[in-house]
Amino acid sequence: MNRKILLPESEIPTHWYNIAADMPNPPLPPLNPQTHEPLGPEALAPLFPKALIEQEVSTERWIEIPEPVREIYTQWRPTPMFRAYGLEKALDTPAKIYYKYEGVSPAGSHKPNTAVPQAWYNAQEGIKRITTETGAGQWGSALSYACSLFGLTCEVYMVKVSYEGKPYRKLLMNTWGADVYPSPSDRTAAGRAILEQDPNSPGSLGIAISEAVEMAAQSDDAHYALGSVLNHVLLHQTIVGLEAKKQLEMAGDYPDVIIAPFGGGSNFAGLTFPFLKDKLDGTSSVRCLAVEPESCPKLTRGVFRYDFGDTAGMTPLLPMYTLGHDFVPAPIHAGGLRYHGAGVLVSQLLKDNLIEAQALHQTECFEAGILFANTEGILPAPEATHGIAQAIREATIAKEAGGEKVILFNMCGHGHFDLSSYEAFLAGNLVDNELPQTEIDASLATLDTPQV
Amino acid sequence: MNRKILLPESEIPTHWYNIAADMPNPPLPPLNPQTHEPLGPEALAPLFPKALIEQEVSTERWIEIPEPVREIYTQWRPTPMFRAYGLEKALDTPAKIYYKYEGVSPAGSHKPNTAVPQAWYNAQEGIKRITTETGAGQWGSALSYACSLFGLTCEVYMVKVSYEGKPYRKLLMNTWGADVYPSPSDRTAAGRAILEQDPNSPGSLGIAISEAVEMAAQSDDAHYALGSVLNHVLLHQTIVGLEAKKQLEMAGDYPDVIIAPFGGGSNFAGLTFPFLKDKLDGTSSVRCLAVEPESCPKLTRGVFRYDFGDTAGMTPLLPMYTLGHDFVPAPIHAGGLRYHGAGVLVSQLLKDNLIEAQALHQTECFEAGILFANTEGILPAPEATHGIAQAIREATIAKEAGGEKVILFNMCGHGHFDLSSYEAFLAGNLVDNELPQTEIDASLATLDTPQV
Repeated sequence: MNRKILLPESEIPTHWYNIAADMPNPPLPPLNPQTHEPLGPEALAPLFPKALIEQEVSTERWIEIPEPVREIYTQWRPTPMFRAYGLEKALDTPAKIYYKYEGVSPAGSHKPNTAVPQAWYNAQEGIKRITTETGAGQWGSALSYACSLFGLTCEVYMVKVSYEGKPYRKLLMNTWGADVYPSPSDRTAAGRAILEQDPNSPGSLGIAISEAVEMAAQSDDAHYALGSVLNHVLLHQTIVGLEAKKQLEMAGDYPDVIIAPFGGGSNFAGLTFPFLKDKLDGTSSVRCLAVEPESCPKLTRGVFRYDFGDTAGMTPLLPMYTLGHDFVPAPIHAGGLRYHGAGVLVSQLLKDNLIEAQALHQTECFEAGILFANTEGILPAPEATHGIAQAIREATIAKEAGGEKVILFNMCGHGHFDLSSYEAFLAGNLVDNELPQTEIDASLATLDTPQV
Repeated sequence: MNRKILLPESEIPTHWYNIAADMPNPPLPPLNPQTHEPLGPEALAPLFPKALIEQEVSTERWIEIPEPVREIYTQWRPTPMFRAYGLEKALDTPAKIYYKYEGVSPAGSHKPNTAVPQAWYNAQEGIKRITTETGAGQWGSALSYACSLFGLTCEVYMVKVSYEGKPYRKLLMNTWGADVYPSPSDRTAAGRAILEQDPNSPGSLGIAISEAVEMAAQSDDAHYALGSVLNHVLLHQTIVGLEAKKQLEMAGDYPDVIIAPFGGGSNFAGLTFPFLKDKLDGTSSVRCLAVEPESCPKLTRGVFRYDFGDTAGMTPLLPMYTLGHDFVPAPIHAGGLRYHGAGVLVSQLLKDNLIEAQALHQTECFEAGILFANTEGILPAPEATHGIAQAIREATIAKEAGGEKVILFNMCGHGHFDLSSYEAFLAGNLVDNELPQTEIDASLATLDTPQV
């Protein structure tokens, strides 16, 4: 009974997989917010290094991982894949459940997979400071870690509700030398404008992005980094799925369904895109299933249209499934999934019915997290519990149908800094609020961005 | 530049190493506290399963690891060994620094190496409930995890100063289903006696042990488990050093000095004993160096004599380096090292000058921890920083001497649940208090236990 499937270090992928090379309908271009004309890559130059802008618009299928980045990856990669024997037994399911475990990275999630190359490319171009936003803190921690490797200053705008609820996340970033500010803050025009309207704003990823972008745009030696949504971020995460494919091969299996939590898309894309390639090649009928919280359901209840990536409207217009860039989700405990929109690549794939989406309530997810901790031993992050809960649903369906099924999900991070959420759950203080359609409609009604 | 040295899963040791088979002076026997006569193994039967009692007194060199325990070990074992290139560079040292990283276990430290077999042996003998103490919470977490694997109830007495300062540690144990009580508690006669003397007692490991032992002794279906000190606990931890030996061989190196933090001895013994075997065999002159906190210096300032393992005097009398079982160390931030005595095997080895000891102040250790996080990426537990700080001292000596040196230390756990300590350090609120000799003398003066 081999519960852990380890890939030899020599098998770490040398290239990331770029799904843009294989999509039947290439993603629509970003638009200039003023003119609504397609934007050239040069428009991104104030915020990102050239290498990442090239990746953002590339249609090359395979993009080489720089040698120094691969060298750092080896600190925790290849990450283990586990066969979830304990969970299977508890569910009494005929399904085989596998999970890829990304919590072994220094920052405890999949986020360093992109934080390290982003920091490295910036350092190569002489950048001294990187600004960013963070929700739950997984991304902020990862970028703080990556910046510490290359001597860069890291400035993190942390969604206020997380900043206040997760003091240890902030401290983790501090120990890696980062400066962390609660967002909305009074350091930026975007933050001050929000605070003027609502001094008690809990913040949102959209607001925090506005603040981080504003700070980076003001300074020549500073750039901005995003932890999800953008094409180059999703690209970097494909190392997860590339490893997972090899590991499942070692186990002699191929997934029927692949499940991952969904915030902006990088977690989902990272695991699924290398398998989706088989589907696009016509050699597989694998189902790829994104799981979002019911309180922030852009994939299942949003619209596909152009929208801003941030709240203040500072980013280019992107074609995405969105709830509207003003949408502020309820302060649920999976802060990393509280984002109003979905990345461009994933949005197009959903539009083309190549992937599926499912929204779940948080108490079902926390219940799944506790079951997982007690059967597999690892305490999952609240974001990760969404994948677990959906895997349990699929395994239960397999049991009822009495059929075999191979399920793979992304156990994207541990919950060591999320125990206040578990405390609330164990004390019975977590509730599932239905999100009224009127609230979504009201947010979308304010959009004056172009239709796709 | 291969920073990570991975052992194939097929190379997981099949046997633990029992140093009692090779010691020039075997350890003295435990004594009955009333009669001061040597105690037979049967005296331990109310607290421990037979298999562990046999291991406690065994002089077999190699003791087989049960197959089901090995199977669970594979969830996180073999653990990685790292060459600390980042730290070496920061120190500009000619020394090669290696560390074995035990923080990849589900509970985040080396403690599950013994928690799993202890829980398994108890479950095999039909025990339903295990009581224990915990200081920093590493041991309590590990036993909670292990008990959840076998359906055992886990009851943890957590030193009050840690219980109050580390709410997330407690919550982690709760998510694995354990019941956690601050110690001293009013649940036991031992706890009530302490509270009567000092209602504000911060607690100590010695007190918490008294409480856990008392609860286990009262009940037929309950046993007690200890996370360090005892021979069988040190035995289980030797898997760390056995793996490390193979990994250093793979790297083509052998250590000049091996360093590990010291609380009761299991961390230190686990890494060093398999190497110490070479020294006892006469084939190596490796230095094995135990690092304890200046505020709890039993190895460097204690006496070698018979003493109780707990505060209330409920355990057998053990021949150990001790500060006296009433000694309550200052509430420093490495709670796992706040124990008045040293395990019997380690004490005898120190007495025979086969190992060395060093006491360090906590601010030097936290400084080392921050440097480690920023050069190696991993945030160490406060206990682990003691090993890092001493490794830095040894590397600095090597630099001054201009010579080569191979240093190995045990990076025994991550600090994800210890960020309040880092917060205090970063805010400049941690102080190093000299422990007056009068305080040690006063504690030792109350001892009426036999001399060795």
